[in-house]
Amino acid sequence: TTDSGAVLYRYTTAMNYCSSCGARVETKIPEGDTFPRFVCTECHTIHYQNPRIIAGTLPVWQDQVLLCKRAIAPRQGYWTLPAGFLENSETVAAGAARETMEEANAQVSDLSLYTVFSLPHISQVYTFFRANLIGPKYSSGPESLEVALFSEQDIPWDELAFPVITQTLQHYFNDRKTDVFPTHYADLEFKRPVNPSAS
Amino acid sequence: TTDSGAVLYRYTTAMNYCSSCGARVETKIPEGDTFPRFVCTECHTIHYQNPRIIAGTLPVWQDQVLLCKRAIAPRQGYWTLPAGFLENSETVAAGAARETMEEANAQVSDLSLYTVFSLPHISQVYTFFRANLIGPKYSSGPESLEVALFSEQDIPWDELAFPVITQTLQHYFNDRKTDVFPTHYADLEFKRPVNPSAS
Repeated sequence: TTDSGAVLYRYTTAMNYCSSCGARVETKIPEGDTFPRFVCTECHTIHYQNPRIIAGTLPVWQDQVLLCKRAIAPRQGYWTLPAGFLENSETVAAGAARETMEEANAQVSDLSLYTVFSLPHISQVYTFFRANLIGPKYSSGPESLEVALFSEQDIPWDELAFPVITQTLQHYFNDRKTDVFPTHYADLEFKRPVNPSAS
Repeated sequence: TTDSGAVLYRYTTAMNYCSSCGARVETKIPEGDTFPRFVCTECHTIHYQNPRIIAGTLPVWQDQVLLCKRAIAPRQGYWTLPAGFLENSETVAAGAARETMEEANAQVSDLSLYTVFSLPHISQVYTFFRANLIGPKYSSGPESLEVALFSEQDIPWDELAFPVITQTLQHYFNDRKTDVFPTHYADLEFKRPVNPSAS
């Protein structure tokens, strides 16, 4: 290994070669920096890694919300809100609407930022927008086994895929009592092995 | 070039070699995907690129807010709120507080998510938290020429570094009239050349 001693203790994707020139990289703290980075041993390019954003919606139709049963890992078979990684050159709202179309073949309007969660153990930031479902029209996209509208009393609380889903739905049904929907921010820290195989 | 024909039209960092195995990458749309990616010609690793998050604060002391005069490009010499790229394994709020300490040697408390801006032309998402400055204690960090508290009538509106700074301050002084500070989300799209040299 060419490792110079600095330890990339944070959640990172393993990197062996410089994506610019193809030489070996080492991990070190660049001059003037405070964090270890992958740095090219030849062209000295510093390769930064940063958290990724997951954008999704809470699609509402009358008194019901739309959930998707996951067809893929992780948490296959559990219910989620439509969401996925934000793409380059895309706004957060546009990414949320795109994921809703991809996972539920559902068109949404009037997106309003509703929940923001930091998940530092996996270097992710989740964002959900409340949105109006345009007509009760939806069907399963390739990443969903099933898509359905749920009233509050029918939410499968024990079969939700992720804590961010549970918390977003809890906020929604609580805020609905007063019809006031402020944006909620929370840090969700979980104890997990640091730096697992990859992102 | 090993380019297979798919065009990475989005804002990306140029990639020539696989960071995992060191072989050449090509740009193509992977099976089941809808966007072109850099894909290794040997080990077939797909190298995703995603938007980055900038986290910052609007530090408030009594009726004044803290601004930093930038010591570095871009917009050197213009005034900004303390902010910078979110790091892996860091919450958005922790990143905002860290940047405030780095750029202004200022400690903040009671962070509350206040503005979120999508800047798709540079694949960035800005987030600012309202925060209380702990004592009127601050000084210039290495990236600041000067740090100072400003009352509303003294804000250097024509010397602010970025539209996200102007809009965050406008929201703040407007919301302060009613003492109600909802989280504001906006898309800020600017016409710029697509895919400039690199991020």
